[in-house]
Amino acid sequence: MIEVYAFATPNSVKVTIALEELDLAYRLHGINIRQGEQGTTAFTTLNPNQKVPVLVDHDARDEKLVLTESAAILVYLAEKTGRLLPATGAERARVFEQLFFHASALSPAFGQSGFFQRFASEKLPLAIERFDKEAKRVLHVLDTLLAHRDFVAGDHFTIADIAHFGWLWRRSFPGLTLDDTPYIARWYERIAARPGVQRGIARVETLAAPN
Amino acid sequence: MIEVYAFATPNSVKVTIALEELDLAYRLHGINIRQGEQGTTAFTTLNPNQKVPVLVDHDARDEKLVLTESAAILVYLAEKTGRLLPATGAERARVFEQLFFHASALSPAFGQSGFFQRFASEKLPLAIERFDKEAKRVLHVLDTLLAHRDFVAGDHFTIADIAHFGWLWRRSFPGLTLDDTPYIARWYERIAARPGVQRGIARVETLAAPN
Repeated sequence: MIEVYAFATPNSVKVTIALEELDLAYRLHGINIRQGEQGTTAFTTLNPNQKVPVLVDHDARDEKLVLTESAAILVYLAEKTGRLLPATGAERARVFEQLFFHASALSPAFGQSGFFQRFASEKLPLAIERFDKEAKRVLHVLDTLLAHRDFVAGDHFTIADIAHFGWLWRRSFPGLTLDDTPYIARWYERIAARPGVQRGIARVETLAAPN
Repeated sequence: MIEVYAFATPNSVKVTIALEELDLAYRLHGINIRQGEQGTTAFTTLNPNQKVPVLVDHDARDEKLVLTESAAILVYLAEKTGRLLPATGAERARVFEQLFFHASALSPAFGQSGFFQRFASEKLPLAIERFDKEAKRVLHVLDTLLAHRDFVAGDHFTIADIAHFGWLWRRSFPGLTLDDTPYIARWYERIAARPGVQRGIARVETLAAPN
C-alpha cells in the first residue's frame, strides 16, 4: 500500500499526478501547511526537512520506504513501474536534465518570486525584480526548447513533464502567464487535458477545500 | 571521448570529481564566467540556459550527447559506469532524495545567500537574513542525517556525496562554516581526503588561475 502526505501545492500535485498516470492506488493524507501542520513532531519524523510531499511505500522491495523530495518520488515511482522514464540512452539523460533544471532553476525562481511579491514583510523592489526576471528567463529557456519538442524531454510524456507541470499549474503565485511563451502554452494545454493529470489535480484540491 | 566545459564553481567541481572517481578520461575546457564567457553564442549553443558545467560524450550509446545540469551529469556518468549509484532498492532512492534535496534546497540557499551578501547592488537585510537562515536550516537538516549515516545516502560513497560536497567546498561564498555541524565536518574531512576528490578539485582550480 502507498500513502502520500500532501497538500494542494506545486510539489504535492506532481506526486498525485504520477500515481494517477501510473494507475497506482494510494491513500492521501492532508498536511495543512497553511496551519503549520508540516511542523508537528509526527510529520517531522516522516520528513526532517518539514516539506510536503512524502511518500510511504509499504510494498517496497526491501523494507517500508519513506521517501521525500517530489522529484525523487517521481523517479522512484517510474522505476518501480518501468514507465514514464526511458530505460537507457539520450532520452533518459534528457529526463534527468529537465528534472534538475526544474528543481534547481524553475522551482526556486517561481517560489522566491511569489514570496517576495506576496509574503515578504517589506516590499523589496530589488529582490522582486531579481526573481521575476529569473522566472521569466527560465520560462523563455523552456519555451525555446518546446519549440522543437512535443514534451520537455523529447517525443514522449515523462516524469519531467509532470515536474514542470506542477509549478506551471501554480504560475499565478509568482504572477506569471503563458502569453509570451506560446510553446509552453501549447504543451500545457496538452498535459492539462490528460485524464490522469486531471485526476491528480482533483485529489490534491480536495485537501485545500474548506471543512 | 568526453569533454567538459567548466569553471572553478561548486557545480563544475562535482563533474570533475565524478570523472576522477570513476577513472574516466576527459578533456577540460575553461569557460571563464567572471568574463561572461557563458553568454557567448558558441557556449549558448551547448547550453541555452548559459550555465556551466556541460558534458559532451562522443561515445554515448546512440549519438553524441551534450548534457547540462551537474546532477543530471552525475546520474549519467554513474549509470554509464554502473558505479556510485546503487542499482535498486532503498539506497538508490536515498541517492535521488539527496540529489534533489541538494538541487532544490541547499544549492539555491547557498547561492542566494552569497549573492545578497556580496553582489546585490543594495544591502537588503531582509533578503540576507532569509537566505542565511535557510542555508543554516538546511545545514542542520543535513547534519542531523549524518549523525546516523557515514555518507549522505547511507553506508556507501555515492554521487549524492559529490553533489553536496560541491557547494560545501564553496561554503565561504555564503559565509558559512562547519563549526556548528560536527557531523557534516566529519563527513567533509572524509570526502576531502579521497584522492579522486582532490584530483577533481585540482583540475577545476587550474581554470581559475591567473594567466
